[in-house]
Amino acid sequence: MLLLFPSSRELTMVNETQHTCSASSSSKSDGGSSSGSESSKDSSRCSTPILDADRHERLREKMRRRQESGDKWFSLEFFPPRTANAAVNLISRFDRMGAGGPLFIDVTWHPAGDPGSDKETSSMIIANTAVNYCGLETILHMTCCNQTKDDITGHLQKAKRLGLKNIMALRGDPVGEEWEEEVDGFNYAADLVKHIRNEFDDYFDICVAGYPKGHPEAESYEADLRYLKEKVFAGADFIITQLFFRSETFLKFMKDCQAIGITCPIIPGIFPIQGYHSLRQLVKLSKLEVPQEIKDVIEPIKDNDAAIRNFGVEQAVSMCRELLDSGVVHGLHFYTLNREVATTEVLKRLGLWTEDPRRPLPWAVSAHPKRRVEDVRPIFWASRPKSYIYRTQEWDDFPNGRWGNSSSPAFGELKDYYLFYLKSKSPREELLKMWGEELTGEESVFEVFTCYITGEPNKNGHKVTCMPWNDDPLATETNLLKEQLEKVNRRGILTINSQPNINGKPSTDPIVGWGPSGGYVFQKAYLEFFTSSEIVTALLKVLKKYELRVNYHIVNVKGQNITNAPDLQPNAVTWGIFPGREIIQPTVVDPVSFLSWKDEAFALWIEQWAKLYEEESPSRMIIQYIHDNYYLVNLVDNDFPLENCLWQVVDDTFELLNTQTQQ
Amino acid sequence: MLLLFPSSRELTMVNETQHTCSASSSSKSDGGSSSGSESSKDSSRCSTPILDADRHERLREKMRRRQESGDKWFSLEFFPPRTANAAVNLISRFDRMGAGGPLFIDVTWHPAGDPGSDKETSSMIIANTAVNYCGLETILHMTCCNQTKDDITGHLQKAKRLGLKNIMALRGDPVGEEWEEEVDGFNYAADLVKHIRNEFDDYFDICVAGYPKGHPEAESYEADLRYLKEKVFAGADFIITQLFFRSETFLKFMKDCQAIGITCPIIPGIFPIQGYHSLRQLVKLSKLEVPQEIKDVIEPIKDNDAAIRNFGVEQAVSMCRELLDSGVVHGLHFYTLNREVATTEVLKRLGLWTEDPRRPLPWAVSAHPKRRVEDVRPIFWASRPKSYIYRTQEWDDFPNGRWGNSSSPAFGELKDYYLFYLKSKSPREELLKMWGEELTGEESVFEVFTCYITGEPNKNGHKVTCMPWNDDPLATETNLLKEQLEKVNRRGILTINSQPNINGKPSTDPIVGWGPSGGYVFQKAYLEFFTSSEIVTALLKVLKKYELRVNYHIVNVKGQNITNAPDLQPNAVTWGIFPGREIIQPTVVDPVSFLSWKDEAFALWIEQWAKLYEEESPSRMIIQYIHDNYYLVNLVDNDFPLENCLWQVVDDTFELLNTQTQQ
Repeated sequence: MLLLFPSSRELTMVNETQHTCSASSSSKSDGGSSSGSESSKDSSRCSTPILDADRHERLREKMRRRQESGDKWFSLEFFPPRTANAAVNLISRFDRMGAGGPLFIDVTWHPAGDPGSDKETSSMIIANTAVNYCGLETILHMTCCNQTKDDITGHLQKAKRLGLKNIMALRGDPVGEEWEEEVDGFNYAADLVKHIRNEFDDYFDICVAGYPKGHPEAESYEADLRYLKEKVFAGADFIITQLFFRSETFLKFMKDCQAIGITCPIIPGIFPIQGYHSLRQLVKLSKLEVPQEIKDVIEPIKDNDAAIRNFGVEQAVSMCRELLDSGVVHGLHFYTLNREVATTEVLKRLGLWTEDPRRPLPWAVSAHPKRRVEDVRPIFWASRPKSYIYRTQEWDDFPNGRWGNSSSPAFGELKDYYLFYLKSKSPREELLKMWGEELTGEESVFEVFTCYITGEPNKNGHKVTCMPWNDDPLATETNLLKEQLEKVNRRGILTINSQPNINGKPSTDPIVGWGPSGGYVFQKAYLEFFTSSEIVTALLKVLKKYELRVNYHIVNVKGQNITNAPDLQPNAVTWGIFPGREIIQPTVVDPVSFLSWKDEAFALWIEQWAKLYEEESPSRMIIQYIHDNYYLVNLVDNDFPLENCLWQVVDDTFELLNTQTQQ
Repeated sequence: MLLLFPSSRELTMVNETQHTCSASSSSKSDGGSSSGSESSKDSSRCSTPILDADRHERLREKMRRRQESGDKWFSLEFFPPRTANAAVNLISRFDRMGAGGPLFIDVTWHPAGDPGSDKETSSMIIANTAVNYCGLETILHMTCCNQTKDDITGHLQKAKRLGLKNIMALRGDPVGEEWEEEVDGFNYAADLVKHIRNEFDDYFDICVAGYPKGHPEAESYEADLRYLKEKVFAGADFIITQLFFRSETFLKFMKDCQAIGITCPIIPGIFPIQGYHSLRQLVKLSKLEVPQEIKDVIEPIKDNDAAIRNFGVEQAVSMCRELLDSGVVHGLHFYTLNREVATTEVLKRLGLWTEDPRRPLPWAVSAHPKRRVEDVRPIFWASRPKSYIYRTQEWDDFPNGRWGNSSSPAFGELKDYYLFYLKSKSPREELLKMWGEELTGEESVFEVFTCYITGEPNKNGHKVTCMPWNDDPLATETNLLKEQLEKVNRRGILTINSQPNINGKPSTDPIVGWGPSGGYVFQKAYLEFFTSSEIVTALLKVLKKYELRVNYHIVNVKGQNITNAPDLQPNAVTWGIFPGREIIQPTVVDPVSFLSWKDEAFALWIEQWAKLYEEESPSRMIIQYIHDNYYLVNLVDNDFPLENCLWQVVDDTFELLNTQTQQ
């Protein structure tokens, strides 16, 4: 009897001594609230299913894994906005471009713009928003020139506190023309890299800049390569290059780097030409020379923006193809100039843009290290995930992944809910066109809800593309319920959230699927709406017939609350079963958080809608009346294998009301 | 618009201020490892679904709830056994009689028998076993007469440490004939009640004895009632009465108690007459008088045990019916004398015996307060739950309900696995008859496994009713797989654990159902077996075709381990979806605990089977060979909605082996 152990890659040999998870040995404490203690806390609770190794990996590990798997990637660079409105727009852009699946984004740092401040437009806060609210792996740039050690350390501590894990370490431009070396100061990016490693050990992944043509201030190309090597050896994890115009430029640079012993990843910086003036500006700042063959094409069409952009896309696509085909390039870094169209086009043509990538969970996972194992959320904030993240940001139990009703600390104050990144994207005039310049009664409110559901224009010809509770058009999934939703909204069941029941669809289903492949996803039917007290009274009579099958919570703005939920326990309404894993239940209807959501949901009537109108105006009074008198209702049909009975519940309610009216 | 709140019982009004769970206000700390801190720990983690209020309620709360719901109950009294063998039998009896659904059992206390010691036959250890290993709510009797305060406190502390929560406080009989009152000593049960309340606050539920005919030593019936009132007012929660022979006796006693202000539950003690001598013995000890009408029946049949028992059953049934019909009796307490037949018969005739009661989880929940929220176990110990409880008794994370692979502390030492309550119930001669007086090769071992599965007698005409890994005949559920199991065992796939896949059966299903009604239960197909390295080699080739669909762990006694489990995560193989609750996943296949189970599973070959034979005997060497060379394999089919593919995997393996043999 011979023992034959197949040695193929599918088999994992595990020695008995290796069978416990160990905390990442590379992560040490740096004295404060340390990464070390976080990771040991994580490792002591592996019971939370790890859905996606991505969520737990550092950026450099993600890069290595993608390189090993041959799965090409891209990243996107943005600069901080100048105004609060521009910030709101940039964050929407993060969401849209994040959908294409960048490995990371980065946010530049301009010392003159107070980049480390708490302003909503600072580099620090924009990067914070990208990580925490948009769920994007983010690199924050940081320059060191003309700054004290304490300043730098302060910025780094703040970045860490906000959940940022990656720094692009740059020298920055000296103030004024003269370049004076400071003793013990930060004269070079390498000094900053060393400082980060000294003060924060291995906490941050560090990126440094490479110059395929040499830094304009360097004595020579060779001298610049030596500086780059110094930066890498000081502790940098990878290199992103300055832009260039020919693939040969990058490939030669990469070869030269390797020749002198630089082995870390080198990511080419791609600049799709988007306009004549932006190109000239960039060239001036970067002191790069535009090759003659490009000038020859551009000069004749310099006043035709569209033509230049088309050329820029063509040129970027062909250069990127050459880079990817070389076999040595695994990822591409795009200088977006905060614009979407050209970069998105290039990425789509390259096949790197992965529209609707496989979701690890039905909601977008935050990239903050503290929240990365969060695996359950109340359904109520489904359309307002940023508000949920904001209001729970002080919670410290996400490392356990689970979130229990009574263990939840208080939700963040509602007074902050109108924070800039939670504001409606549409200006007041737009909202008035959608929701009515003048309301004539509750029915005109029903009409707005109905138009939002159907996608049909309202009586003034304007489409209703958002609501106070939903900043975006209806989700694809909700579209499945469109016909029923339209019917009930017309009659004053004002729906703000719903999901159909699902009895075991494959986890790869394009509409409702999520999680690893080979699994099955399930849902209980859910319906949430505002409605009048007459309808609630009839509904409650009807619900007696559905006792056990339907769980309900009914609450008004004063907090009068009617429910049949047993012991105030959460009800799981979305779950998935996967190969080799524990059950995952990412969405619950939770009686306790519902009362926090109730405050927010009612406040949105006033803050977003009533306040569009003059005080004391009839329109405002109509919204105020609804706010004061309507109920917020949620219904769950527990019998997920059967046909959704919630429509029947609503029909029965209307029928009962009709009978009563006739009597 | 009028607000109408239906006030019917189904609706729960919840004020906003009440919406967080609060720790039981009645439970205070007593300085040590307190119940107070335990309950606050529990309440801070309501994320574990509360399946069954029973698991969290104190005995007195259970009584109150049953009284309110009108759901009659019973309880069973046992005395500690004299010998270790008798202890093993008593524990089996706990399991069998526990299946009938007693509200609690109680264990008597005999000062002469060293009742607080660590002996396997002591009252303390028997009560410990009932709570922790049999999952029974248990009352430990305790007497105080002739004992020091320190002795008593020591016993109570030990009881608490072991997870006992209920004490029957008794005076006990004085040593010798003379009754001397001790100053500051424990002269009456009321002193003991006060002492428990002083030292342990509200931790224990306390029961005291009532005498429907008055205590034999009391001056009068009325004086005895006053003593009883004193005991209750000292802090007792309920009363169990001495036995009596007529229902009127009890009903009068109860009325008299109420008349003097005793309002706590009073539970009648029922003594089904089981034999002439036991009756005489009991009457002598209790100084009770047997009514003439009973004497008249018994005397003539005193030598006919069966006739007396039949009479005893009739008499008990009719008295119990009168008690229950009175409307004031909600529970009945049975003096079993450690016998099963009569009491079970009475309970069945009364309709109180609830065979196959609704299971809160697919495995029996331990009654230890620390473990009461435990809600997930590895599947491996499915047939050896007491061993699992024993080996994890030092774990302190059950209050979190969840159990994670890497967070699990070490499993208890294997050297203890042959503890008395884990021993085989069958003597050596029985086992030899079942498993073979003499083995002639591996095939004779295959034959034993096959006979166990089929229930057919072996070639010597003996049925195989247990195996080293299964002390009981096949589970009903496993019977569903019988035909397939027989086939594979014949060919050397020696199965020790299996479950079929289930895709959403009602939680009330009589065979596979568990948990609250209105839910759906699911399972992934599971198969666990020992097999030779030839078969493993072929199996591994076959499993490549089933990659992703089938997860496997294959390990030999040396710990060489082959698996395709992702990241050593547990795989949920049993789960349930219920109205208004989170998902419950009570059974997992966990890679880490599998290696602890492996040690136990291999050791059972030697400890239970090989050691039946002489050293160096061929039979012993055959078992030793299997132990040293076979592999323990487990397989999970992740595609639970499809037909179980594990049989196909095994068939493919045999086919591959056949092809190889032919070449």
